[in-house]
Amino acid sequence: MANMRNIYQLSPKEIRLLIRKGKWDRPTAGLAMGYAQANLVILPERYAFDFLLFCQRNPRPCPLLEVLEPGQYRTKFLSKDADVRTDIPRYNIYRKGQLEATVKEIKGLWEKDWVSFLLGCSFSFEEALLRAGIPIRHIEEKKNVPMYITNIPCEPAGLFKGPMVVTMRPIPSEKVSLAVQITSRYRMVHGAPVHIGDPRRIGIKNLREPDFGDPVTMYKGEVPCFWACGVTPQSVVMKAKPELCITHAPGHMFISDLLNEELASF
Amino acid sequence: MANMRNIYQLSPKEIRLLIRKGKWDRPTAGLAMGYAQANLVILPERYAFDFLLFCQRNPRPCPLLEVLEPGQYRTKFLSKDADVRTDIPRYNIYRKGQLEATVKEIKGLWEKDWVSFLLGCSFSFEEALLRAGIPIRHIEEKKNVPMYITNIPCEPAGLFKGPMVVTMRPIPSEKVSLAVQITSRYRMVHGAPVHIGDPRRIGIKNLREPDFGDPVTMYKGEVPCFWACGVTPQSVVMKAKPELCITHAPGHMFISDLLNEELASF
Repeated sequence: MANMRNIYQLSPKEIRLLIRKGKWDRPTAGLAMGYAQANLVILPERYAFDFLLFCQRNPRPCPLLEVLEPGQYRTKFLSKDADVRTDIPRYNIYRKGQLEATVKEIKGLWEKDWVSFLLGCSFSFEEALLRAGIPIRHIEEKKNVPMYITNIPCEPAGLFKGPMVVTMRPIPSEKVSLAVQITSRYRMVHGAPVHIGDPRRIGIKNLREPDFGDPVTMYKGEVPCFWACGVTPQSVVMKAKPELCITHAPGHMFISDLLNEELASF
Repeated sequence: MANMRNIYQLSPKEIRLLIRKGKWDRPTAGLAMGYAQANLVILPERYAFDFLLFCQRNPRPCPLLEVLEPGQYRTKFLSKDADVRTDIPRYNIYRKGQLEATVKEIKGLWEKDWVSFLLGCSFSFEEALLRAGIPIRHIEEKKNVPMYITNIPCEPAGLFKGPMVVTMRPIPSEKVSLAVQITSRYRMVHGAPVHIGDPRRIGIKNLREPDFGDPVTMYKGEVPCFWACGVTPQSVVMKAKPELCITHAPGHMFISDLLNEELASF
């Protein structure tokens, strides 16, 4: 593995090269600060229109940063020289919705009809919130963000349907407006909260029992704020049980050459 | 034809009903003020993934408001009860890129593999600019907005490629920032300008000679501001010469039940 101390100073391109050579297979949180990281979903072409339509209809949980044409594995928008077959630290391979293997590259498996979807992730807006002095509890407590399955239905598209999954961040009352303003600027990475306040209104019974991730402390005077989560498209795809689906392993993201601030203009 | 004096007071639903009954086949500018109007593009399913991808890659000229699944003709997002086969005053039918006919409904022609795309139009942001006291010259001069073919290439997708077409509005220097701020809120209807200032930088030789629409007067102290235009996807589709393509006739738009202000949250 690459030297832990140095990696935080490397550029996105340098990190992707390490990953490509198999020298970094750990999570990417905290790497290449300032640059957007992306979720990956690969599906065979016969599912691609339905999934693209699902993302178009559900932009909050599924903010598309880049979609590659069938068989194409080089990105153009997120980076001029990245290869989605090798530049992600770990991939999960699912067949009919079941995890079959976790691997470090998928070059050997690549098929000419695979379509790659890269989706925005909340790392980008968390950086912006922190810069504005808004606390992010799960980072303070060194935990995974708490995630909840809501009763908000996504707009279905073809095979793909299911409820929206959200992340929760407790925000001090006096900073809720600021948190909405800041995240509104980043619609390519989930945008503004989808719900603010009473969790029961969106079908969450107990904030202490997230469906994924860890519960976090909530202080007096804080309001639970809920953002659409990138786990939504993954869980929707798993439920549809496609013949094959490849994703990044959780936390092991694609690191792009695009600054978070550049994303704010889209 | 419906009574000209009354139609300006009707709701979107009432106007769509008149159109459906063949009682209104004229342009829709100025009708149902406050509500979003949309461009229509219908393509057979085999072109749908490429065109959806083209729109995803070129959101400024191609802001997708709603895409219907193959064969579906009832909208869900823009209205709960509209029918894209009958609710537009005039349709253009193109075969292999050539205009074949202009008709008042397409119910009799409808095929099970047709995919309907509804795209945002600049009427929505013009209303917002006017409310903020920003003059819109072509409205003042009762002309069509001037449109220009630029040297800005769209990101190609499959069959679809071509240059971006823009509209131009002269804005007083001191109001250019405000115009950017206001239109930035409406990314579903082309969003912020793609270019501000020297037309030659985007390949426009003479503002007095637009490629479509009419030239407008430009006063001293005004800056030409250029927004991506919905003619872009139409011209790109025509160039690709698909077997069949149906669009709204220019100016004869789909009137939705969605308020322009609701669009601003997407």
